[in-house]
Amino acid sequence: MPSEMKALLLIGDGYARTPTASVLEAMEPYLRPGRIAVPTPGPTQVLIKVGLASINPSDVMFVKGQYGQPRVKGQPAGFEGVGTVVASGDEAYPKSLIGKRVAFATGVSNWGSWAEYALAEAAACIPLLDTVRDEDGAAMIVNPLTALAMFDIVREEGEKAFIMTAGASQLSKLIIGLAREVGFRPIVTVRRNDQIASLKELGAAHVLNEKASDFKAVLREVIKAEQPRIFLDAVTGPLASTIFDAMPRRARWVIYGRLDPEPTIILEPGQMIFQHKHIEGFWLSEWMRQFRDRRGPAILEAQQRFSDGRWSTDVTAIVPIAEAMARIPAELAKPNGKVFLRP
Amino acid sequence: MPSEMKALLLIGDGYARTPTASVLEAMEPYLRPGRIAVPTPGPTQVLIKVGLASINPSDVMFVKGQYGQPRVKGQPAGFEGVGTVVASGDEAYPKSLIGKRVAFATGVSNWGSWAEYALAEAAACIPLLDTVRDEDGAAMIVNPLTALAMFDIVREEGEKAFIMTAGASQLSKLIIGLAREVGFRPIVTVRRNDQIASLKELGAAHVLNEKASDFKAVLREVIKAEQPRIFLDAVTGPLASTIFDAMPRRARWVIYGRLDPEPTIILEPGQMIFQHKHIEGFWLSEWMRQFRDRRGPAILEAQQRFSDGRWSTDVTAIVPIAEAMARIPAELAKPNGKVFLRP
Repeated sequence: MPSEMKALLLIGDGYARTPTASVLEAMEPYLRPGRIAVPTPGPTQVLIKVGLASINPSDVMFVKGQYGQPRVKGQPAGFEGVGTVVASGDEAYPKSLIGKRVAFATGVSNWGSWAEYALAEAAACIPLLDTVRDEDGAAMIVNPLTALAMFDIVREEGEKAFIMTAGASQLSKLIIGLAREVGFRPIVTVRRNDQIASLKELGAAHVLNEKASDFKAVLREVIKAEQPRIFLDAVTGPLASTIFDAMPRRARWVIYGRLDPEPTIILEPGQMIFQHKHIEGFWLSEWMRQFRDRRGPAILEAQQRFSDGRWSTDVTAIVPIAEAMARIPAELAKPNGKVFLRP
Repeated sequence: MPSEMKALLLIGDGYARTPTASVLEAMEPYLRPGRIAVPTPGPTQVLIKVGLASINPSDVMFVKGQYGQPRVKGQPAGFEGVGTVVASGDEAYPKSLIGKRVAFATGVSNWGSWAEYALAEAAACIPLLDTVRDEDGAAMIVNPLTALAMFDIVREEGEKAFIMTAGASQLSKLIIGLAREVGFRPIVTVRRNDQIASLKELGAAHVLNEKASDFKAVLREVIKAEQPRIFLDAVTGPLASTIFDAMPRRARWVIYGRLDPEPTIILEPGQMIFQHKHIEGFWLSEWMRQFRDRRGPAILEAQQRFSDGRWSTDVTAIVPIAEAMARIPAELAKPNGKVFLRP
């Protein structure tokens, strides 16, 4: 075991003072490549030699100081990944994971996955079936659990139609897959016509290009016909305001991302009063605290879906850590797929 | 019984196309004085010779086409009042009300109280104790039930501190009275320093002048010290946005009015995600549908409070119907009290 490792280290500390959009416009203000001591696992933890690390929208919000937990300056970033357990704490369960390939989430430990080695609680590791690809394993916790949790909200509401912005994101695609299986009708927005066909094939009932000149008219027509109640929103800003305004009585705007930094306006506050509309948020960490019993089955379900091909992660790029500073913002700006880091 | 009566009649029909603020800037676009046939009560209804009619913010929203039910052109406006029952339908309970002084709400009947005679469902009439003044009787349903219902929200949330905009409104004063009795701590905003002392005396824990240069700093200090969770908001716009943004985790912004037509911005949508904040609305009609069992006790409680002096309606003006077109907007613009119409 080496004593030092390469990693992408956080430049900022705590939270950012002013809110910005959750787009990574550049690496340099937030991250620097560096060397740091390989950490030692505590009694309930394991040390993982990272195979692939995921770059999620939540990671981007975190490195920019916009996420729900504070940054620790000089620590590696990265909330999840896949790798092999190479060391562990003294407890029996962590020990039993040594040598195993696992999907892992770093959460509380504050040692990120954007490094050659990462710490994770053994309880936050999922030993992987051989049938699960590394690319799926590295993206098996944050997006899949978010998809299952948010689709629970749709299912509980009961209306088959629902709306999602950022329709071509990996998360939206997972939800479209879930919806198709039970006959629900996702209405999704995208920014490019070439995204429409594949999302319809995947199971979206309607795919609307938010840049089209007739977008608002088409949106109102579709909403009138489908009567969606739940709006899962990664974007905010004027697009989301327009959608929420057009939705029917008892609509619920569930915000889980902030891709657009433009002001987010409640166009007609009277709708909150007379149409009983609601605005709320979704955060996976909060969901995991509230629905502990749902977590285990959800993780199992995610793994089964990736094993049998019902779910699959579209890969935009796998970027070696040495090229990360130069390439990641541009790779993240590409549509349709996920970007991974190979330490 | 005359066959015709004087009334203030609605000019608009249905809903307004574009949203405006709930301030009555002029009468002429919305109302005209006129004569109309005295209506005949249906089997479950009573005909009331109106003594005083209330002018509530909800009436203003209604005549402007901004309320949750459509206008009927040529009908009298007015949601509540006090008067004497002079005729009734054939059923036993309506008949039993003849000759009685009642507080009434016109609701479903669509015949307003801004007229010499008004129709109401007998079930929406409250026979008044002699100890209740006409001014209190005419304002006994809409505001008092709203106060009791919204204070239920505060009480259920459990935090003793809560925030209200339009702190000097009759509604806010009723809620301050309720809060004082159970040791809750209202934090209210006003627009004039001369409103501060009387509201503090009434039971407000903090009265902040939103026009003061140090308003934002004081607001943040008070919120930090008191940790209010519920925000009962009649105003929306920049003031409400600022308050909601400064509130702590799990804050709930309950919109029940729209006094400010400026855009209502969610300053930091990330708070919906990571701080579990919510935005919702309150509408008395919806509450009455949802909480039928609470309605009877609430009406009784309201009458007792007005009888024993725990509640009292501050009167700005009682305007004869002949002077209504000329005087009402200016009277409504005065602070601190309620405006009544005498048909």
